[in-house]
Amino acid sequence: MMKLGARTAPSRSLRPCRVSLGGRAMQRAAALVRRGCCPGTPGPWGRSQSSAAAEASAVLKVRPQRSRRERILTLESMNPQVKAVEYAVRGPIVLKAVELELELQRGIKKPFTEVIRANIGDAQAMGQQPITFLRQVMALCTYPNLLDSPSFPEDAKKRARRILQACGGNSLGSYSASQGVNCIREDVAAYITRRDGGVPADPDNIYLTTGASDGISTILKILVSGGGKSRTGVLIPIPQYPLYSAVISELDAVQVNYYLDEENCWALNVNELRRAVREAKEHCDPKVLCIINPGNPTGQVQSRKCIEDVIHFAWEEKLFLLADEVYQDNVYSPGCRFHSFKKVLHEMGPEYSSNVELASFHSTSKGYMGECGYRGGYMEVINLHPEIKGQLVKLLSVRLCPPVSGQAAMDIVVNPPVPGEESFEQFRREKESVLGDLAKKAKLTEDLFNQVPGVQCNPLQGAMYAFPRIFLPARAVEAAQAHTMAPDMFYCMKLLEETGICVVPGSGFGQREGTYHFRMTILPPVEKLRTVLQKVKEFHIKFLEKYA
Amino acid sequence: MMKLGARTAPSRSLRPCRVSLGGRAMQRAAALVRRGCCPGTPGPWGRSQSSAAAEASAVLKVRPQRSRRERILTLESMNPQVKAVEYAVRGPIVLKAVELELELQRGIKKPFTEVIRANIGDAQAMGQQPITFLRQVMALCTYPNLLDSPSFPEDAKKRARRILQACGGNSLGSYSASQGVNCIREDVAAYITRRDGGVPADPDNIYLTTGASDGISTILKILVSGGGKSRTGVLIPIPQYPLYSAVISELDAVQVNYYLDEENCWALNVNELRRAVREAKEHCDPKVLCIINPGNPTGQVQSRKCIEDVIHFAWEEKLFLLADEVYQDNVYSPGCRFHSFKKVLHEMGPEYSSNVELASFHSTSKGYMGECGYRGGYMEVINLHPEIKGQLVKLLSVRLCPPVSGQAAMDIVVNPPVPGEESFEQFRREKESVLGDLAKKAKLTEDLFNQVPGVQCNPLQGAMYAFPRIFLPARAVEAAQAHTMAPDMFYCMKLLEETGICVVPGSGFGQREGTYHFRMTILPPVEKLRTVLQKVKEFHIKFLEKYA
Repeated sequence: MMKLGARTAPSRSLRPCRVSLGGRAMQRAAALVRRGCCPGTPGPWGRSQSSAAAEASAVLKVRPQRSRRERILTLESMNPQVKAVEYAVRGPIVLKAVELELELQRGIKKPFTEVIRANIGDAQAMGQQPITFLRQVMALCTYPNLLDSPSFPEDAKKRARRILQACGGNSLGSYSASQGVNCIREDVAAYITRRDGGVPADPDNIYLTTGASDGISTILKILVSGGGKSRTGVLIPIPQYPLYSAVISELDAVQVNYYLDEENCWALNVNELRRAVREAKEHCDPKVLCIINPGNPTGQVQSRKCIEDVIHFAWEEKLFLLADEVYQDNVYSPGCRFHSFKKVLHEMGPEYSSNVELASFHSTSKGYMGECGYRGGYMEVINLHPEIKGQLVKLLSVRLCPPVSGQAAMDIVVNPPVPGEESFEQFRREKESVLGDLAKKAKLTEDLFNQVPGVQCNPLQGAMYAFPRIFLPARAVEAAQAHTMAPDMFYCMKLLEETGICVVPGSGFGQREGTYHFRMTILPPVEKLRTVLQKVKEFHIKFLEKYA
Repeated sequence: MMKLGARTAPSRSLRPCRVSLGGRAMQRAAALVRRGCCPGTPGPWGRSQSSAAAEASAVLKVRPQRSRRERILTLESMNPQVKAVEYAVRGPIVLKAVELELELQRGIKKPFTEVIRANIGDAQAMGQQPITFLRQVMALCTYPNLLDSPSFPEDAKKRARRILQACGGNSLGSYSASQGVNCIREDVAAYITRRDGGVPADPDNIYLTTGASDGISTILKILVSGGGKSRTGVLIPIPQYPLYSAVISELDAVQVNYYLDEENCWALNVNELRRAVREAKEHCDPKVLCIINPGNPTGQVQSRKCIEDVIHFAWEEKLFLLADEVYQDNVYSPGCRFHSFKKVLHEMGPEYSSNVELASFHSTSKGYMGECGYRGGYMEVINLHPEIKGQLVKLLSVRLCPPVSGQAAMDIVVNPPVPGEESFEQFRREKESVLGDLAKKAKLTEDLFNQVPGVQCNPLQGAMYAFPRIFLPARAVEAAQAHTMAPDMFYCMKLLEETGICVVPGSGFGQREGTYHFRMTILPPVEKLRTVLQKVKEFHIKFLEKYA
């Protein structure tokens, strides 16, 4: 190495800054600031401040960081597109929930004894037990010594051997191909073919992903281009799952809203799509149409007719279709059925089936398996240009591969025990229990919400959320404004603080101007859910009285 | 739903396009095109064509896709930044390797009986056995019924219980916090503190990631901003690991090359950094300095002095430091030692330790565990602005969480058995066997390469690759040009076709103009590696003779 010239480096005998700057108090202040609670600067979630802000500010004033140089990476210098991202499902409401949990642990008295996280579709966190067969196969893949153990059923061992034989070095610890393990993609294709009554699926069109979110953001990343009036417009439903708006921000694309029809069970109306595209064309290039079916947060299940209308519209308007179908196993309302976009597309004949470009997404996280932590998912692409497939594989290669354990979990989701196999009976019981309970809870939630004055809840036809409309008195809206909070954020914060129930304000998903909602999962066990709903009801009535 | 007006939809009785367009032949042609082999258009890897191109073209000419409308998503309409991405480690050379493997499986005779994938650091795919303890803990976490089994050691059960207790619903199937499971972040911080001889690490500064790649691309995503002359410049070593160039392309940042000193064991020379920054300032805003230590693909281990020089330079030039330290356990040369940037930064005193912004990265994929498939990793940030930490958590939240199984694997990497624990002896034996073999293979590879005329190989001080320089005759360079290939791609393709050995051309990592290299992993078992090296030697001598 060459030698450096003279330096201006300071003495090394001083202690590091973190210690000299006030220890715990400073750290606590920093943590508060980090939560977006510092007045004057917008929080990272682009939302309102909490009462902790003043405290953080006070601590910072007491102990200024005198010796610190200006940082390189600041809110001002950072990527503005990332700064613009919002993600409500894990936003300030969840940070508050964490804070309350810590306080409960420290023995601080609250009007409740536990925080109930009804903000996120995280089934196992709410006590749902994993499907035994899936975990058996995963354990066998993880520690193949168990393949000799008599305490595992043969059908689980057979699945595990099949997966391991397709892995490099017969190990989950090897990278897979960027597109995913071959035999798992084959199993996914076979599942889709069965699901769609024989409409063929090609393993070559299947890409395994790190949860569905990864697939959605990857395909959007490829789709987005242009500047000025030719910036890519991405149509998303309002209300939407905020992954979409977040990725659109990150990619600097244009979010084009189409509103679901709340008066009509959150149905998608093609006239509204038409309006959205017409208006969007004035300032961008609408190129992508995102559909969430069954709906998140809105829980509607699209009719076959509606899907056909959407596909025709996409064909007509030359829109690339993204079908987020992660709740395909979560359909509860009698008379509702899941129809995949792929199947309907195929049935509409070759002009559609050989032209409309479609990517559809599924995941290990939802359904009746609820394996969120494994981050498994797949994407099926239809009519993707061969060159673009090459680009897709290239882009996926940069991250090497999706977690192989998540891929294995995906395999069991699409390839569960079948009648005649040793594990089938137990699997069937477990599956029916989860889905039966969810159907019960969907009905219970709808019924109980609709008994509350000032609450109006569409049927939960599918998915795992209620998204009731709440009618807030003018004085509550004013109070929220005084706290620089969206009115439904104010409502949800109060609900959390008074009952420990954590739900997400409708403003995080988007809603028609002047309407307010929240999203609540129906994942707590039946009796607990009943209690939760009762508490929400009592809170709501008190809230109405207070701000009447 | 509203009704649609008159449609122009065609008859539904026709078969779908895919079938009518020539079945297998068409699909095969499409597959070839997808591999970037179609003449006239650049392949997705931005590199050279293969002999399959003409074939693909011929098939396409015979069966044009007459009825297909123009696609929405094409090479022309796609995101140009994604199109610009290259990723050599899984580029055309690997597609060729897959093709050869399939041909071998089909019984087609080749001058070799197997393809040896020395292109990627994928230890278990090359036969390395997982560390037993890690897999035991993972199996226990996956299928907690095993916690009652007498065939698992108590220390593994203890680790598994600790991890599960920190997971929602005590399950790997729940989402974790976006930043990662708390107790695992604590274990990571404790590991760093031990590793760095007591320099404290704060769990609040630890972010668990989906492999190191995810951490690196996430922090770069936040760092990049500006347009024109204020576009963010990112300094990367040449040769580099191509994740860096790929992410820089994706983010439309400016890649600023600094060249490692091949004549001096690939050492980093601060004068060269200075030159790179000076020149970069003329057209961009150099803001980030990436260091890979131990080096990939170059295998050098930075001296403490060199790290101190780099930190001083970063301080002086106000550069945000990214330290890619995934090979921290892979140091072989006597006299070489791994020094973390964090530790050196701390030891340089408060002016540095409280000002220089640093993110460092580690992973489950390398070291002696080699658990690539689990996609586990962590990032430690130092001096990150509290507001930016909030932004980071927000951005991570959009993807919900890193795979929880990968987080659990990371826990065992940083928290392995210690003396006195039941599993320690076996763990120690397994660890020493892997690292001992790697050291042996590093020396063997250096020695054997340096016996080949026209090959020159620096010592493999660390990591798991050789990056020998190959001196190619002028006629070989001409032959490559005639195939529109980089000369070292041409060389590596020939090596693959004649010996089945898959290595990555130096042009995929970057190298000084007019020099040629390739990267080869040293992961095959010792005796197999010896054979591989012998084959490369024979190939090289024949190649020199042919193009002399």
